[in-house]
Amino acid sequence: MSSPNQPAPFTADDYRARMARAAESAAEAGLAGVLVAPGPDLVHLTGYRPVNTERLTLLVLRAGEDPVLVVPTLEAPDAEQAVGSPALTLRDWTDGKDPYAVAAPLLDADGRFGISDNAWAMHLLGLQQFLPGTSYVSLTEALPMLRAVKDAAELERLAAAGAAADATYEEILKVRFSGRKETDVAADLAALLKQFGHSQVDFTVVGSGPNGANPHHEAGDRTIERGDMVVLDFGGLKHGYGSDTSRTVHIGEPTAEEQRVHDIVREAQEAGCRAVRPGAACQEIDRAARAVITEFGYGERFIHRTGHGIGVTTHEPPYMIEGEEQLLVPGMCFSVEPGIYLPGRFGVRIEDIVTVTDAGGRRLNTTARELAVVE
Amino acid sequence: MSSPNQPAPFTADDYRARMARAAESAAEAGLAGVLVAPGPDLVHLTGYRPVNTERLTLLVLRAGEDPVLVVPTLEAPDAEQAVGSPALTLRDWTDGKDPYAVAAPLLDADGRFGISDNAWAMHLLGLQQFLPGTSYVSLTEALPMLRAVKDAAELERLAAAGAAADATYEEILKVRFSGRKETDVAADLAALLKQFGHSQVDFTVVGSGPNGANPHHEAGDRTIERGDMVVLDFGGLKHGYGSDTSRTVHIGEPTAEEQRVHDIVREAQEAGCRAVRPGAACQEIDRAARAVITEFGYGERFIHRTGHGIGVTTHEPPYMIEGEEQLLVPGMCFSVEPGIYLPGRFGVRIEDIVTVTDAGGRRLNTTARELAVVE
Repeated sequence: MSSPNQPAPFTADDYRARMARAAESAAEAGLAGVLVAPGPDLVHLTGYRPVNTERLTLLVLRAGEDPVLVVPTLEAPDAEQAVGSPALTLRDWTDGKDPYAVAAPLLDADGRFGISDNAWAMHLLGLQQFLPGTSYVSLTEALPMLRAVKDAAELERLAAAGAAADATYEEILKVRFSGRKETDVAADLAALLKQFGHSQVDFTVVGSGPNGANPHHEAGDRTIERGDMVVLDFGGLKHGYGSDTSRTVHIGEPTAEEQRVHDIVREAQEAGCRAVRPGAACQEIDRAARAVITEFGYGERFIHRTGHGIGVTTHEPPYMIEGEEQLLVPGMCFSVEPGIYLPGRFGVRIEDIVTVTDAGGRRLNTTARELAVVE
Repeated sequence: MSSPNQPAPFTADDYRARMARAAESAAEAGLAGVLVAPGPDLVHLTGYRPVNTERLTLLVLRAGEDPVLVVPTLEAPDAEQAVGSPALTLRDWTDGKDPYAVAAPLLDADGRFGISDNAWAMHLLGLQQFLPGTSYVSLTEALPMLRAVKDAAELERLAAAGAAADATYEEILKVRFSGRKETDVAADLAALLKQFGHSQVDFTVVGSGPNGANPHHEAGDRTIERGDMVVLDFGGLKHGYGSDTSRTVHIGEPTAEEQRVHDIVREAQEAGCRAVRPGAACQEIDRAARAVITEFGYGERFIHRTGHGIGVTTHEPPYMIEGEEQLLVPGMCFSVEPGIYLPGRFGVRIEDIVTVTDAGGRRLNTTARELAVVE
């Protein structure tokens, strides 16, 4: 039994099932197999978390074949410790040897393979050179839904990560903003995420005043002042799964215009969440949120997609973006995070993680979305 | 003037010169240009440090053409802040658009390009698909020496990072080892590296007893005991440049065998360093160190290459490994780090960063290499 705070760990059987499903999905998609690089795909499929380096580590999955993990000899002891290790065979290669010569016999010489998006170009080129008859397609293009549909154990973790992010937001409302630097508040956010059980903090955006108008601003030396809008966007990993939420707060009473822009984003975010249902296309979520902002004349100032999937990483398919026709399926989890950015002035973004259920979207972030006035 | 502790920052002109040199080197190597992904290549060439993600960021360098940086629109404000930004043109693309359609017109449709080793496979596949007449080779293969020869300003930073790592080692000798966990000593190492000016700690290996026999062991729950050999291997970035040093210590007096194995590694490391001179091939450094260990019968227990380059990252070309015929040039910096690993028992590794000068190798780590006895 797992305690409420500690989910039951994944087992070798869980990973075996995931690897088998990935190999089958590849076969159904007409691929000879799946090539998995260190990073979120490998974590998801094996529980093994090596660093992605110039030394080739590659999981080879083919339908009807046992999974094989190619690893550098000196990392083999670590690989053997991975929870998923009993479900695969290790094939090691030693410094100075050609790692592609070890990987190549595992591949069909004229096969088409899905390969992790983040595999190093150097390794892909090595495979292409060694096996000129093979061809490759990124996993996001070939099997975009490989990690997208979460099972119950994964949803439990994502909900826990979301609850921890929400607790962080509740606490940050109590700290002083005015007179402190963005980096100070960012440090508070990081400490709170850790306090609420995150093992890793991935981002702590504090975009005050004009900095809020740059959606990728993190946190800088600017001192937060009375009258500032402040975009907060933070998250990381808890029990190996991601959190990601945004709220925009105001130091003291907002102007009518600030309140109005915030109201529009809030309505857009609401519309995006309402559009979530099984069978809706990802782009419909984007359209629903964007329509509200466009209707109020700020369409040009909503300069990013509406959302991204989340799981063992905080950015993954499916993407809520125009042109993405993938249909939503129960178990998918992604952000809904429209924003309006007024260069040189301020920005507003509101973001929740939403999971698809048979009954529609269910938010994993549930803190108040009204514009909070802080000190 | 820069203070002794703060080197003069790199300027846009420095980056302009580096980009021009890279483009010229590519042309000399018969390449149409260089494609640079986020990571150490981009940091070295522009000072810009975005995260390497699914959103394409790509610097395109071609001889006789101005450098162009393809960036996601929402990251453009950050890119404009990079020190090297005045030396290049930004070309942005918006979410939902095809980034390869923006990058493609910058490339010759039938050109052969060097591409950063760590570029995402997804992006390489995108370029290959959009421009089927192009071909690609990893920068390590095409221009292995692109970042390998350090100029005076870079050597100053590497020496400062080395000195900080040495100060860390001097201090760690004074802490208590026995009765504490490896992770406790690792935390001490990390704190000391920061105290001595590191902005980032990349690794703090504490391999006690049998854990020392796994060269990739980091630090675990094992309690260090009297009689243990302990491999310490630590480093990170200071002023943007790397440190990396290893020493092996013993808790209490070593046995004759332990002392003997340590002596052999020390002699091997000495031989490796002595072999460093302009015009020597990288593999000669490996051979020189390996010959000593082999001569004493431990050749099978030296299971990794002798060294790796270091600069804006702690692992980069040139590699000191059998088969690497690259000739050493003054200004190159790399580790010399032979080791002996006795499975289930203990390991020994000794590592210094060495730079090539006209007069031979100069160590950037100068702490005592004798087996230190600690408490």
